Amino acid sequence: MTPEEFRREGHRVVDWIANYMENVERYPVLSQSQPGQIREQLPPSPPARPESFDSILSDVDEILMPGITHWQSPNFFAFFPANHSGPSILGEMMSAGLGVQGMLWMTSPACTELETHVMDWIVEMLDLPDRFLSSGDGGGVIQDTASSSTLCAILAARERVSEYRIREHGVDRTLVVYASGESHSSVEKACAISGIGTGNLRIVNVDDQQRMDPQHLSELIQQDRESGVTPCCVVATVGTTSTGAVDPLEKIGSVCRQEGLWLHVDAAMMGTAAICPEFRFIHQGLESADSYCFNPHKWMFTNFDCDCFFVADRNALIRTLSILPEYLKNQATQSGAVIDYRDWQIPLGRRFRALKLWFVIRSMGVEGIRERVREHVRLGRLFAEWVKQDSRFELIAHAGLNLICFRKRGSDADNRNLLDRLNQSGQVYLTHTQTNGQFVLRMSIGQLGTEEAHVRRAWELITT
Amino acid sequence: MTPEEFRREGHRVVDWIANYMENVERYPVLSQSQPGQIREQLPPSPPARPESFDSILSDVDEILMPGITHWQSPNFFAFFPANHSGPSILGEMMSAGLGVQGMLWMTSPACTELETHVMDWIVEMLDLPDRFLSSGDGGGVIQDTASSSTLCAILAARERVSEYRIREHGVDRTLVVYASGESHSSVEKACAISGIGTGNLRIVNVDDQQRMDPQHLSELIQQDRESGVTPCCVVATVGTTSTGAVDPLEKIGSVCRQEGLWLHVDAAMMGTAAICPEFRFIHQGLESADSYCFNPHKWMFTNFDCDCFFVADRNALIRTLSILPEYLKNQATQSGAVIDYRDWQIPLGRRFRALKLWFVIRSMGVEGIRERVREHVRLGRLFAEWVKQDSRFELIAHAGLNLICFRKRGSDADNRNLLDRLNQSGQVYLTHTQTNGQFVLRMSIGQLGTEEAHVRRAWELITT
Repeated sequence: MTPEEFRREGHRVVDWIANYMENVERYPVLSQSQPGQIREQLPPSPPARPESFDSILSDVDEILMPGITHWQSPNFFAFFPANHSGPSILGEMMSAGLGVQGMLWMTSPACTELETHVMDWIVEMLDLPDRFLSSGDGGGVIQDTASSSTLCAILAARERVSEYRIREHGVDRTLVVYASGESHSSVEKACAISGIGTGNLRIVNVDDQQRMDPQHLSELIQQDRESGVTPCCVVATVGTTSTGAVDPLEKIGSVCRQEGLWLHVDAAMMGTAAICPEFRFIHQGLESADSYCFNPHKWMFTNFDCDCFFVADRNALIRTLSILPEYLKNQATQSGAVIDYRDWQIPLGRRFRALKLWFVIRSMGVEGIRERVREHVRLGRLFAEWVKQDSRFELIAHAGLNLICFRKRGSDADNRNLLDRLNQSGQVYLTHTQTNGQFVLRMSIGQLGTEEAHVRRAWELITT
Repeated sequence: MTPEEFRREGHRVVDWIANYMENVERYPVLSQSQPGQIREQLPPSPPARPESFDSILSDVDEILMPGITHWQSPNFFAFFPANHSGPSILGEMMSAGLGVQGMLWMTSPACTELETHVMDWIVEMLDLPDRFLSSGDGGGVIQDTASSSTLCAILAARERVSEYRIREHGVDRTLVVYASGESHSSVEKACAISGIGTGNLRIVNVDDQQRMDPQHLSELIQQDRESGVTPCCVVATVGTTSTGAVDPLEKIGSVCRQEGLWLHVDAAMMGTAAICPEFRFIHQGLESADSYCFNPHKWMFTNFDCDCFFVADRNALIRTLSILPEYLKNQATQSGAVIDYRDWQIPLGRRFRALKLWFVIRSMGVEGIRERVREHVRLGRLFAEWVKQDSRFELIAHAGLNLICFRKRGSDADNRNLLDRLNQSGQVYLTHTQTNGQFVLRMSIGQLGTEEAHVRRAWELITT
């Protein structure tokens, strides 16, 4: 494909995306495709000769589109908001067009420096603790997902507690990690991957609002110390995936400081809310955290993947993950004057992801992002009110932001049927969770295009 | 940004990329930017109000472009080829525009089914062993990088050897992994991450062409068994990063079969060559591998990130990485009729990456890809011939494909100066490695736009 051909087909793809944005509400939100239905329409072997871009685009429309679940629909209320926005798509396009590697500063200085810069902007935007700024001992890096951030945090905690010996010698004792049962599954996965073992993840009790109980945390740590194992890390959550619960960071942080444990705060779901001063209560006590992450690809209008991960002591992270083979050595690295982000993450290679976040922040402005987030929270509170005022339903959980858990009074089967009916209608998509042994519906409000009318319509569908 | 505004700005970004493609040779290949030079031009705080897309594009040109190292230049001969191509950028654009999550089959059936389908195509295109096909017990998945694939392979090996106990109980004995000193740094990193420990990575000797010595491998395993530790995994390389060496898979595989060890083959650099039947010698013996990966984002004209990872026993991988919290449960998963790729990787979320690979294969056709790869290999052999015939230089390593290691007769300092001179000229970009204690230049030929004239010009610059 020549640059001229790229120009022509690129314009068509841009038009295709713009049309998709305009028409996204016309598709059933949840794909109604059956297992195998997409594959059976694809030829068994790859083409030997080039095919026209026409035929590819036509197959996208005919074959793939029925198999797409429309995460960008304003009627998408499932899992978590997974936003894109015009500026973020443009940033992703340019990143693909430049095709640079950000593994070392030298492999594209702009890729590294823009990332460090935008991460510092984020500290200001969310009013995060200064210790996460790159100007001190800390700093931020873009990861693919919060799962990877949590893994990096647990690895750094594992190393710090072992005086950076496990990295070389392997896990040589029983280490223990603490999180509530409401924490994200990635905590369990990180315990498995890191060689700590899921059996050494202690499940801290939660209160009646699914928040970690700091007293129980403290007790568990004492018990573990007495039994001779090594407490290493606590993962607290700001906005659990299930119900949006916010763990009490202040008390958890004080336990961690006293016990010398690494505190990682996973705010993947809700961290974005802190862009509004009135919602910063979610981060109260964050000063004690050794690491923190939240996902602009969830609620900050930046297309997946874009997780912002901050550490207070970047050397702990770098000592944990650094590898320097001869073929990556260079003067800039050796001078110590630059950041090489390859030492801040699991993979070596990395895309220019700061570009899309920079495009979003500049195109929307901090106030523009704030307005959308504020509106989503308003809609969340409105929806919670509707649930409360309808005697046929009960409000199960609402931490005051954009995720509401509720159920129809009746059996789990009734609620499962309700969910199936909603999702099969194609008009909305919601998912569920379990709370206190009950099947519960989740309403997550955070797509860029979601307005009051969409939420109102969803409530009508739920209640009729 | 409305869909109409996106359409307008999107056309501009496409034109920007097309212009960049046309003019990429005008930029110095290696950025000549100094540490901090980009950042100091950026405002310390994010904008409160929206900024125009004009001002953003203008900052890209003025501030960022001097800090870009041009990986897409046909004069880029550093590290590894890191190609994009028109169709791959279009695929990435559409993936960003659709903005779907591929973590579960249900979260977008087309995303999962196209991926499984294209991975099966790849098995046919590269003539990989049938055991990697999804129709049997195996299957393929797209990972971000080979580092992640190697980590997944080592984790699965760790679990298989422990009867899937370590995942739960933690590393509870000394496990040992084997690779040559020429293997990629990600093997060491994976040993660190997995809790095995880099000290338990045994370095297998290489022969005079930097290929793993299977006899030495066998001896190390015997020694380890006798000392009571647990051999677990061998990582062999098809095309080492330093010199492109190809480990003897057949003999290594027979050791692994005999010893019951997991064999992972890392063909990140060179696997693409197997699209040409005449280069399939690199994969001789691959039938014994438990897992295999190669990178279309290196030499198959598909922009980063796109690593293809195959396993012979997908259940071993899934048992290692699977996590199923309530909020991800759904009928399709429970039916067992679908693949949920979240269980095949470290993160939970995933982009629709199959789209760009599908676009590339269809737009270029298998024959089109073959022609480019064949031409790169021809240029590699031509360059090696020039080195051999010039008495001022010596050929250090060339495995017959597209990576040539050579040096000027003289001191390391002479060669370092030569490399600095070349890279500071901005006309080409090469990197170096160490072989047998010597500083050696690497010439990696594989960018989509690289023609004989570019290679010839590089040789002129090197020799004058």
